[in-house]
Amino acid sequence: MDLTSAQVRLEPLADRLEADVMALAHLRDPDRPGWSRQVFGEPYRASRAWVRERMREVGLEVSQDGAGNIVGVLPGGSPGAPPLVTGSHTDTVDGGGRFDGMVGVLGALELVRCLQESNTRLTRDLLVVDFLGEESNDWGLSCLGSRSLAGELTPDHLRRTDTSGTALGDRYGQFGIPPEQAMSADWFRRRRPHAFVELHIEQGPLLENTNAQIGVVTAIAGIQRLLATFTGRSDHAGTRPMDDRADAMVAAARAVLDVQRTGCGAPTHGVATTTSLATGSVSPNVVPAEVEMKTEIRSIDSSWLSLAQQQLVRDIANHAQREGVDVEFEWTNDNEIVQTSTAIQDAIARVAAAAGHSWRAVPSGATHDAVHMARLAPMGMIFVPSRDGRSHCPEEWTDFSDVIAGVQVLGSTLLDLDRANRLSVRE
Amino acid sequence: MDLTSAQVRLEPLADRLEADVMALAHLRDPDRPGWSRQVFGEPYRASRAWVRERMREVGLEVSQDGAGNIVGVLPGGSPGAPPLVTGSHTDTVDGGGRFDGMVGVLGALELVRCLQESNTRLTRDLLVVDFLGEESNDWGLSCLGSRSLAGELTPDHLRRTDTSGTALGDRYGQFGIPPEQAMSADWFRRRRPHAFVELHIEQGPLLENTNAQIGVVTAIAGIQRLLATFTGRSDHAGTRPMDDRADAMVAAARAVLDVQRTGCGAPTHGVATTTSLATGSVSPNVVPAEVEMKTEIRSIDSSWLSLAQQQLVRDIANHAQREGVDVEFEWTNDNEIVQTSTAIQDAIARVAAAAGHSWRAVPSGATHDAVHMARLAPMGMIFVPSRDGRSHCPEEWTDFSDVIAGVQVLGSTLLDLDRANRLSVRE
Repeated sequence: MDLTSAQVRLEPLADRLEADVMALAHLRDPDRPGWSRQVFGEPYRASRAWVRERMREVGLEVSQDGAGNIVGVLPGGSPGAPPLVTGSHTDTVDGGGRFDGMVGVLGALELVRCLQESNTRLTRDLLVVDFLGEESNDWGLSCLGSRSLAGELTPDHLRRTDTSGTALGDRYGQFGIPPEQAMSADWFRRRRPHAFVELHIEQGPLLENTNAQIGVVTAIAGIQRLLATFTGRSDHAGTRPMDDRADAMVAAARAVLDVQRTGCGAPTHGVATTTSLATGSVSPNVVPAEVEMKTEIRSIDSSWLSLAQQQLVRDIANHAQREGVDVEFEWTNDNEIVQTSTAIQDAIARVAAAAGHSWRAVPSGATHDAVHMARLAPMGMIFVPSRDGRSHCPEEWTDFSDVIAGVQVLGSTLLDLDRANRLSVRE
Repeated sequence: MDLTSAQVRLEPLADRLEADVMALAHLRDPDRPGWSRQVFGEPYRASRAWVRERMREVGLEVSQDGAGNIVGVLPGGSPGAPPLVTGSHTDTVDGGGRFDGMVGVLGALELVRCLQESNTRLTRDLLVVDFLGEESNDWGLSCLGSRSLAGELTPDHLRRTDTSGTALGDRYGQFGIPPEQAMSADWFRRRRPHAFVELHIEQGPLLENTNAQIGVVTAIAGIQRLLATFTGRSDHAGTRPMDDRADAMVAAARAVLDVQRTGCGAPTHGVATTTSLATGSVSPNVVPAEVEMKTEIRSIDSSWLSLAQQQLVRDIANHAQREGVDVEFEWTNDNEIVQTSTAIQDAIARVAAAAGHSWRAVPSGATHDAVHMARLAPMGMIFVPSRDGRSHCPEEWTDFSDVIAGVQVLGSTLLDLDRANRLSVRE
């Protein structure tokens, strides 16, 4: 019996999904804290074989594309129609958790099981993608697989080296992915998806704080990263009088507080964070002459973001000057602000409400593969709550009842979109 | 013809001393910046053979003691009398200069040349010591050789490991110094010196700023080192709202400014410096959960030093608490405040004035082998100016006319002390 999507009520099972999440979590690097499974590592290699096997088990046609993405296809009734695409990633940060990324891949597999068990046939093909290496890595590049799909992996990227001097392209090769293939793996440009929807944990506290089970993502924050290099004067810490110093550490400390003040003055959901300070010297008796500060600011408000950049540079430079310290600034733009498809936002909110789940509109402060998929298709994201808002840490947790609600909403949204005509990106 | 010391006017030669200083400077580590010759390195090994050879050339009886100190003896007329001791060190910090330590050893050799050339015979033996490894090293221990002499090198010290896991004791052994011998090399306890006088560059700007050629050191600052460990909460830097963070970096930045304020409020010559901050994580998108701060405060005023410690801990803890961050403190005392012998101060000032050199009383903000020698004998120090007050950097410089003035004053002081009866330490 084939049911049409309108008649279907999907019943994903928490036990099955939890077993998958925990099994995958145990494919981890035993020498690193938490549930570490970083891109290109041996645990990651093992996990990708495991993911392919799970995809086959639920009945998907599995392949790996040139970019190293694992793609499982559930054929629909009209093979020529633009496909529905879902998925996320299964790599983690160093010392990461068990949910970030994984619920979007394993949740999609549970959804496919439900579709199969209920004999629900979609009109369109459904593609479940496990994107290669979404988390930022030693080469400072996130979203490797989805970046390739958008045609945005460049030779410059592949020439980047990690701290051991290994080029990213060489690491691709060692992992069995020819780097030139990764650069030309933009196959979605020839087969434009109908829609991309990603299920993900929120990684922040907004849903939990408002008792909402489902987050309808409105936009993904833009990220501006700042490398500020403070250059003072190296002096003996015991003999140079306090009023005759050019202390790069003091200038950097003032800058850290400038960054914090900038973040505190941001519009809702704007943040500013100094993620590291590093001193050139490690002598215990030298006034630091060089300090490197890494900072990022994020917002879904582009005008604030650019004003904040200008103001921050002015404040830091003024404070440094008063300490007699020079400072150089280098900004890198990690992400433009990406709006989600309003049509998909509406669909998510509609099906969530119909299923009795509380929902609210939320921004995404974190970046996702969805950022790159938005170049190829109307894009939407579904968030589920993170306990205490924690993420990128071993304590990262989402109750499986919440994950299951997310899978239900993902399924109903895809069924809804399956019937829709062509969506425009900002429809 | 033997002259009595009172008749002698020493005429050390700048050219000869400069040639020695530059020759030694070129025994340096080519892979490190500046004039690096760190303890236990190959350039240091080569330099010690070079120093022994120079000592023999000027007519000293040369030996190496159990602690690895090179000792050159110029026999006096009364072999049983408590000897005069001078000297310093020939190792450098990483990226150091050509003068710090070296002028005290090579200046003493030029002095011996002058004594020989003028047929000046001292009553007492004169010992010139090149102390092993004075600068702080990867094991966090300075003044290795003079520490041994004072009987203060302990098994705990030798068990300390560097970042590669090598124990200090093993490194001694690799360098050819049996560590158990280094621990029992307190031979000066059996042959108490009459006086120890060290010639050194100031490493600060006080002499230059006041146009004084000679510094009569009154005291060597005490050093209190603080390791403060800030523990906040690791959060995603993109998703955690600004008002819901426990940011260890922000707490540490406030602490750096607390340290600076403490130093600026110190009595004259007191300083407070944060020499490093280190973040546990280096992820570009994580709110730092752990930051380690290394700070030191120095003063020749013991009551201020202990009050400043208490106040600093209170301020840092209060600021951290407001950021929701825990902080733990660990103080290590590197040096007690050491007063120099007033009898030797007087002798230095007297001979400097008699020779027409401008002089002033100055404290030493830096630590020296003299700190440990003060346990064994009345101790004094002679400073010569540092250009721009710079030290522990490649630019470190003292005009050779100033070094020569220092050698003259060292020589005249030793001749003066040679005639004196037993000095008390605080006479």
